[in-house]
Amino acid sequence: MRLRLTIAYDGTPFRGWQSQPGGRTIQDILEAAAATILTQPVSIHGSGRTDAGVHADGQVAHFDVPDSCRMDPAAWLRALNVHLPPEIRIMAAAATSPAFHSRFDAIGKTYRYHLWNAPVLPPLMHNRAWHVPHTLDLSLLESATRLLTGTHDFAAFAAFRGDPRSDADTIRTIHSASLSTSGPDLSLTWSGNGFLYRMVRLLTGAAIRVATGRASLAWLESLLLNPAALKNHHLAPAAGLSLISVAYPSDLEHHLPASGLPGHHIS
Amino acid sequence: MRLRLTIAYDGTPFRGWQSQPGGRTIQDILEAAAATILTQPVSIHGSGRTDAGVHADGQVAHFDVPDSCRMDPAAWLRALNVHLPPEIRIMAAAATSPAFHSRFDAIGKTYRYHLWNAPVLPPLMHNRAWHVPHTLDLSLLESATRLLTGTHDFAAFAAFRGDPRSDADTIRTIHSASLSTSGPDLSLTWSGNGFLYRMVRLLTGAAIRVATGRASLAWLESLLLNPAALKNHHLAPAAGLSLISVAYPSDLEHHLPASGLPGHHIS
Repeated sequence: MRLRLTIAYDGTPFRGWQSQPGGRTIQDILEAAAATILTQPVSIHGSGRTDAGVHADGQVAHFDVPDSCRMDPAAWLRALNVHLPPEIRIMAAAATSPAFHSRFDAIGKTYRYHLWNAPVLPPLMHNRAWHVPHTLDLSLLESATRLLTGTHDFAAFAAFRGDPRSDADTIRTIHSASLSTSGPDLSLTWSGNGFLYRMVRLLTGAAIRVATGRASLAWLESLLLNPAALKNHHLAPAAGLSLISVAYPSDLEHHLPASGLPGHHIS
Repeated sequence: MRLRLTIAYDGTPFRGWQSQPGGRTIQDILEAAAATILTQPVSIHGSGRTDAGVHADGQVAHFDVPDSCRMDPAAWLRALNVHLPPEIRIMAAAATSPAFHSRFDAIGKTYRYHLWNAPVLPPLMHNRAWHVPHTLDLSLLESATRLLTGTHDFAAFAAFRGDPRSDADTIRTIHSASLSTSGPDLSLTWSGNGFLYRMVRLLTGAAIRVATGRASLAWLESLLLNPAALKNHHLAPAAGLSLISVAYPSDLEHHLPASGLPGHHIS
């Protein structure tokens, strides 16, 4: 049985999603929990990495349960949560097609970036929002997010890992970027067909720079128009970011015409 | 100058409000920050203690700034926040009457208790809400809070400290107890003229016991009617509780008739 997991985490105490020597990554801790239950090594595949300090409401991952194991998905959800720290929770578990792949099948992701726009950051927002005490022009911020929406070469908004294959294709489509505010609590929700490495934090950092008046909309536009020549270095802190959800064609089938699946992008 | 502080904290890493040997209490850390700024010892007086793990949005405290110090309240707010950990923030600072006392002058307090009513507690609610996975009857919960509202002898809802003076007067008035829900996120807001030691957690624990069907409204009523004989032992966990605000007559003067101040209660 291939099991599809929806995972939430508080990224604060971890070294990001992706397994690495020394552990303390979310993938390492999940694999250790599943291995304890199965008493054998397990590889868990996520929809994509998240950096140290980045949170998730709806990361998606999958792994294969051997036929010898008779636990159903609901039992897996409970058993994994017993073996995980409270900062990582399995929110949903479901049996899925043996062909399902959390990373290669993803057709879209939604991220939310939280800012706190007031002189003092409340303690309960520490590690959960970017504290921006400067005055922000919200109409400029909306113009900035509108400018970034659509299909563009986002090379100026990517940190490259030095992998020629994944660094080569830098065209992505942002379906929507919406601002919502509740007093000093401000959030930017970015939905797209995929995001380059650190792209959401670089987009948010640039948009906020415009909203503080330190850079212009023309500067932002130039980054989209000259992706090979220019680079944005304004990276919003990890702690404000959360991966809200990952979209798959199988979840959308009844909403789309038969031939209407958007192109795939891995991020 | 007597300085009045409005303080927010994440209670998770601390051993409660009240100073104690070994430190790591909020009062100890505040006094150390003020002492560093003034280069002399400082006593800070809070409106009342909060237990280890209990949070605050609006704790109130005061202390006296020597005449030799020329910092204004806004400079104090900034300087204290520089010397405090991010889990404790001064949200407001104001010069107040030399006769103002944060504890003796308090005429009311508002607490909010957060519960999460779903099978899995999201990581970002860890240490911030009581996870109650059981089915709750919200209309029974509202009946329970309605029953507890008003003036009663709350001795059955108090943990005693063994101090005969403060343990003797157990009559308090709860002005309002309101339930609000947003999906699985459930909060009870308790406002009253004062609360006994652990009273909000004991009231919440008892009300939730009724809402799960494990105890009746008649049981709850019997605790109010026989305060000397009966005792409620259902204590809701500290992590769900936050002290939202403290009320003072001086803040209300224009809302009240000249002779209309409610009786004082220290809690």
